[in-house]
Order: sequence, then structure tokens, then C-alpha cells
Amino acid sequence: MKLNKNFFNLHDDYLFYKIISKAKEFEKTNPKLKIISLGIGDTTMPLCRAVISAMKKSVTEMSKKETYRGYGLEQGCKFLRFAIKKYYKKREIDLSISEIFINDGAGRAISEIQELFDSNNTTLIVNPTYPAYVDISILAGKKIIFANANQKNLFSPTPNKNTKCDIIYLCSPNNPTGSVYTHEALKKWVNYALKNNAVILFDAAYEAFVSSKNLPRSIFEIDGAKKCAIEICSLSKTAGFTGVRCGYIVIPDKLIFENHKINKLWMRRQTTKYNGLSYITQRGAEAVFTNEGQKQNKKIIEYYKENVKIINESLKKIGIWTCCSNNSPYVFAKCPNNMNSWKFFDFLLYKLSIIVSPGIGFGSAGEGFIRLSGFGDRNKTIEATKRFEKIREFLG
Amino acid sequence: MKLNKNFFNLHDDYLFYKIISKAKEFEKTNPKLKIISLGIGDTTMPLCRAVISAMKKSVTEMSKKETYRGYGLEQGCKFLRFAIKKYYKKREIDLSISEIFINDGAGRAISEIQELFDSNNTTLIVNPTYPAYVDISILAGKKIIFANANQKNLFSPTPNKNTKCDIIYLCSPNNPTGSVYTHEALKKWVNYALKNNAVILFDAAYEAFVSSKNLPRSIFEIDGAKKCAIEICSLSKTAGFTGVRCGYIVIPDKLIFENHKINKLWMRRQTTKYNGLSYITQRGAEAVFTNEGQKQNKKIIEYYKENVKIINESLKKIGIWTCCSNNSPYVFAKCPNNMNSWKFFDFLLYKLSIIVSPGIGFGSAGEGFIRLSGFGDRNKTIEATKRFEKIREFLG
Repeated sequence: MKLNKNFFNLHDDYLFYKIISKAKEFEKTNPKLKIISLGIGDTTMPLCRAVISAMKKSVTEMSKKETYRGYGLEQGCKFLRFAIKKYYKKREIDLSISEIFINDGAGRAISEIQELFDSNNTTLIVNPTYPAYVDISILAGKKIIFANANQKNLFSPTPNKNTKCDIIYLCSPNNPTGSVYTHEALKKWVNYALKNNAVILFDAAYEAFVSSKNLPRSIFEIDGAKKCAIEICSLSKTAGFTGVRCGYIVIPDKLIFENHKINKLWMRRQTTKYNGLSYITQRGAEAVFTNEGQKQNKKIIEYYKENVKIINESLKKIGIWTCCSNNSPYVFAKCPNNMNSWKFFDFLLYKLSIIVSPGIGFGSAGEGFIRLSGFGDRNKTIEATKRFEKIREFLG
Repeated sequence: MKLNKNFFNLHDDYLFYKIISKAKEFEKTNPKLKIISLGIGDTTMPLCRAVISAMKKSVTEMSKKETYRGYGLEQGCKFLRFAIKKYYKKREIDLSISEIFINDGAGRAISEIQELFDSNNTTLIVNPTYPAYVDISILAGKKIIFANANQKNLFSPTPNKNTKCDIIYLCSPNNPTGSVYTHEALKKWVNYALKNNAVILFDAAYEAFVSSKNLPRSIFEIDGAKKCAIEICSLSKTAGFTGVRCGYIVIPDKLIFENHKINKLWMRRQTTKYNGLSYITQRGAEAVFTNEGQKQNKKIIEYYKENVKIINESLKKIGIWTCCSNNSPYVFAKCPNNMNSWKFFDFLLYKLSIIVSPGIGFGSAGEGFIRLSGFGDRNKTIEATKRFEKIREFLG
């Protein structure tokens, strides 16, 4: 038996694992210091009441023969797909429920969707990036090129004359930079894809954080996108489902390559390789899209965004440059004194007992930056910003 | 963008989809007839009390900030892996928890595990087979060879002089035939794999149905298996988790190919492509392995097996040959009067309003057989066997 050689093209350890290892080691040697993590983008607020109530009800259903459910549809329960259809309709995007596929989160979906495409394609990834895009493309044997994000293009690069690719990963609001593509910038990508027979994989996992009315929350707000894009979304950050696992992808009926409807190919893939998502999870997810669920989750998102505001303002006050759109749970901050990412990470950990995510962990264009997350507890976030005030004391 | 050409090597529709379509059409034109399904292998008994109670408790945990859980470990919660380790220990199989990986069911796991292996390998599949093995191997671009199961080898083929393969899918107790490999027969496969540098992917999804003390429930009961096998298991049939989704795979630390520990490669794959399973599901799964959960689920399994016994005896009574091990939820029956599978399927549907699974749907070696499932309701199963008595009336 021969192994898949692509595994040996993967780089060193997964970013978050490295961060946790460093933090654990520090904690061990400094047990009395209180570490505050603004690092990993994990939710901390409990599931909202609407979701809890729906899940309890569905657990009870599973306890009785008359209401017990076995295998569900591979593409997801109809009630949930109808709820998502309505959710899009509010934003004037018309979808049929056969264009919506339920899954267990965007993390897995962004990787599985690659199976549709020949390994002989070139994938474009925005740099810096959520690291999994790179690793899954390596494992799929794809050639990778990068579009560099930087202060100049406000971390929202668009295609240029030299761009040559078949698959385009876009993430907006962006992880790690927090930048959000405008309609105009996204239109450039859609035009590129339509002209060059490319497909856009649009990761909208943070769409619920967009409150500015003039910014797109879905690629399908752009004319022509239904002919070149797949949207990948998740309830992880929208409704605190990181530990529950539910997401969905939208594959428009009009998306056709080599005379094949991509929607149909994906349906065939799902019925072969997937057995659907937990009924209990899907009932919980359905509740997210009710009026009650939307209201309750909006409050949670505002709580996280207020954390982001607090972090951002405290950094600006001490003269640190940040990329902060106010439409994302993240602040992307430039390291002071031209420090590199890991050096500033180490400084914050060893001097201030604060964990952040080093920008370099998200790709070469993230060097010299750190990512700070608004997903923490309010009091701890405030305590962290108090510690930030000491940065200038140490560094000048 | 170029599509993955392997999609176009897939054969016609998925078996169960075709069965459902035929049944729906018949129901539409015969709305007054009561159809009984002995077809799809889906569970019908509710989740046991221990599982329900554990899941309710964990939903409540998710509703409070102090006990809320975000991202879990990609390899699964420790408490569940410890429970599974103990479950194996009862059968004198020693595992470390790092050898156990939790997932959302065997269906997806049997496909994902293929990613470890180069597409240039040859996969051996027992014919007839659970259809997904074939489709996922085609999608992975693997060459496929078959080991034919038949009445002569009691549907438990072993390698012969001409067998040449790198990856071996075995399923015991078998879906669709219900046959169970003996220790001696499995030893032949283990010896083959060790000698030929092959890997065995052992699907033990039905292990809980084995009550005969002298039959293996795990490949790791065979000496040497830890150096050549991966075990894939599921709670779908063991504990009625078809609509909840939970399974696990065991990759022994000693499993090494090309100087690489397969366990480590899989861990790298999981941290890249997976975000773990629902905490609520994992708490439910943990309860399956408690004494209470084991007792309650044993009763359910005995209920299904009693259905199998009823089906099997009624068919034998009218002179139909069956492969029935009494250690599986299925009966594999020879079609009378040399009918082919779909012809007998149509006969049973149109004359007796009974749905079964045609053997040919599981591969060429299944031609001339049908699969009947014990997962139904007792009264409906008895009603079906009463209708069976008319088979000879119609066919002679």
C-alpha cells in the first residue's frame, strides 16, 4: 500500500496547536499569573434560549417510538433548508431549497467541496488566510497561488492582470484580518471568475457580524455570482455552534462547468459519502432562524463586537495601527517597533500574560501583525486592555 | 476549472434512492394498500433512557456560561474515548485513547480514511457489498477488484493465490448478507495483509449483533491485526444513532507504512479538516457504554434479532434458502424460481406490498438474492411473514 504523498507536503504544526503549547508551557512555569486569551476564535457565550428549547424538545422526540427519527436526508432536513431560504429572502436573495445543503460546519465543507474539482487546478488564496485553506489544498494536490492582502489594499485584494487561477477562496468578513469586501471589490472577483471559467468558494462564516448596510453579507448579492460561486456558511460564530456543529453550503442551480450542474454532482457526492446531520442539531439550527432566535443571537453578536471595539480603541490609543472593520469579531493589529509576529506574541505572553494569534501563522503576508479576538469574556477583555497600556512602558 | 473526472465513472443511482422511488410510485397508484418495508436498514426503536437523559443534561450545560462548550478536540472528547477504551478492554483488547478517533458515523469514515492512501492503490471489496465502498473507491480514483461471496463459501470469502490488492474492505457481520467471519477466516486476511503490505479497513458497524461467543466482534481479536488493520465502528445500529450520528475509528499505534505511523497522519488530517463532533452527541454516546446504556440497548438489539428470526423461519418454511447467521440484523434470501433480484423485488412490491432490498443492488454477486431487514416494527414484521405465505400460491 502506498501512502498519499500530499501529506508530506504539509508544513509544520497547525497554528492553534502551537499557540496552545506555548501558553501551556508558560502557565506551567508561572502558575500564579492569570493568562487572558484573545487568541483562538472560539465562542464563549451559551446557546440562546430558542436553540436550547428546540433541542430539548427534539431530544424528547427521539425518546418516543412515534416521534423517533432515523436516517435523515443527506442534504439536510427540509424544515431547516426552508428556514435558510427565508433567511436569504430577507436580503432579497432567492434560493430554492434544493440549492441548500446542510452540513456539520464550514471547516469540513471548505475541504470537501474541493473533491468536485480535478487536482490539476490552481487555487488562489488570500494571504494572510485561515490556515486550513492552504493545508486542504495541499492535501488535495492543488497548485496554490496567493493574492496578498496588505495595509495598502486594506486587506481586501482584487484580481490583477497577472492573476491566473481556477478556484478562488474568499472569506468576508475575513479571518484573520476582519476586513470586509465591498460590493465593488467582490464584483471584480465575480467578473474575473465568469471571464476565466473559475469558481469562487465564498466563506461567509462571519456574515452575521456585518451591520453596515452598504456591505455585502453574501456573494449572491453580486450580479452574476450564481453562475460562478458557491457560498459556505456556518452557525459556529453566528449562533455559538462551535461545539454543536452545523453549517450549510449554497450551490446555485445555474452553476455549470463542463456542461455539468455542480449542484447535481454535489448531491450525488452527498448521497454517497454522507448520512446527514443530527436531527437534534438541525432542530436547534432551525430555531436560530426564528424571530426569537435572531433577536437573541443578535445580542450575543453585539456583545462580541463591543469587545472588539474595546480592544481596537485601546490599541489605537497607544498608537498601534489596526485593521478593524467593526463588522467582524477580529482586530488585526500591526506589531509595534517593527517586531515580527511571534516576537510580539512572546512579548504579550511573557510580559502581559495575554495570548493572541501571531499574524505569520496565517501566512507570510501576516508577518508583523497579530490577530485579537472579541469572543472573550467582557471583564477579561477589559482587563487585557488595561494590560495593553503597559506596552509603551516596556517598548517605548 | 476542471471537474474531478472520477465523478463520471460512477454508475447509476444510489440503491436506496431507487427503491424509494419505486415504492413511492406504487403507493401513489395504490393508495389503499399498506406497504411494509423490510428494505432500508434504518433503526425504528427510540434512543434508550440512558442516552436521552445524558443528552438532556448536556443541552442544559450548553445553556449556561459556566458549563458551555465551544470547539472540542478534533479526535473526540476524552470521556468518550475512555468509555470506548473500556468497552474494548471487556473483550480483552487493549487500546490507548490516542488510538481512538470519534467521528459522525461509519458512512463518512469509510470514505475519509481513503485519503491516507495514494490513488494508485488497488482496493479489494467483497461482492456483494454495501454500495458506498465501491462508489467512494471510484471517487478516490482507486482500482477495484472483488472477492466473490456465494453460497459455497457461506458469503465469507478469503484470499486466494490470485488475490493482489493494497486496501481491503471487510464488513463483519456483513451488510448485506448477514454472514460473520470466523477467527480462522479473518486470520487468513490478516496474514495476507501482513505478507503483502496491505491495509485492512474493518467495518464493525454491526458488531453489537454478535452474540455467539466463538465469533470475533473486532479485527483486533486476531493476532497481528494491530500491524495491518483499521477498525471502523458506529453507534447507528448499536444504539439507534442513525439520526444522531456518532462513530469511531481505531488506528493502532503499531500501524506503520513507509515508516510513517498512520495514527499520526490521521491526527494531522483531523486537525486540518475536522472540527470535532457535537458535545451533546458525545455525551449521549458516552451513555451508550455505561452499564445502564449497555443493558437498555441490548434489549433493543434482541428485539431486532427476534424480527430477523421471525423473517428467517417464515422464509425457510416455504422453502426459500437463506443466509442467516443469527448475529446480524439482516437475512439474505435466495429468490425462488430462479428469479433475478429486481424481478423478485417487483413481485414482492406489486403482489404483497412488501419492500425489500434487491441483492443485485449490492453487486453482481448479489444477483438472485434479496436482503430483508429486522429493523422494523414487530407487528409489521409478523404481518409481512403472513404475506410471505402467499408466495408459493403465486409462484408455485
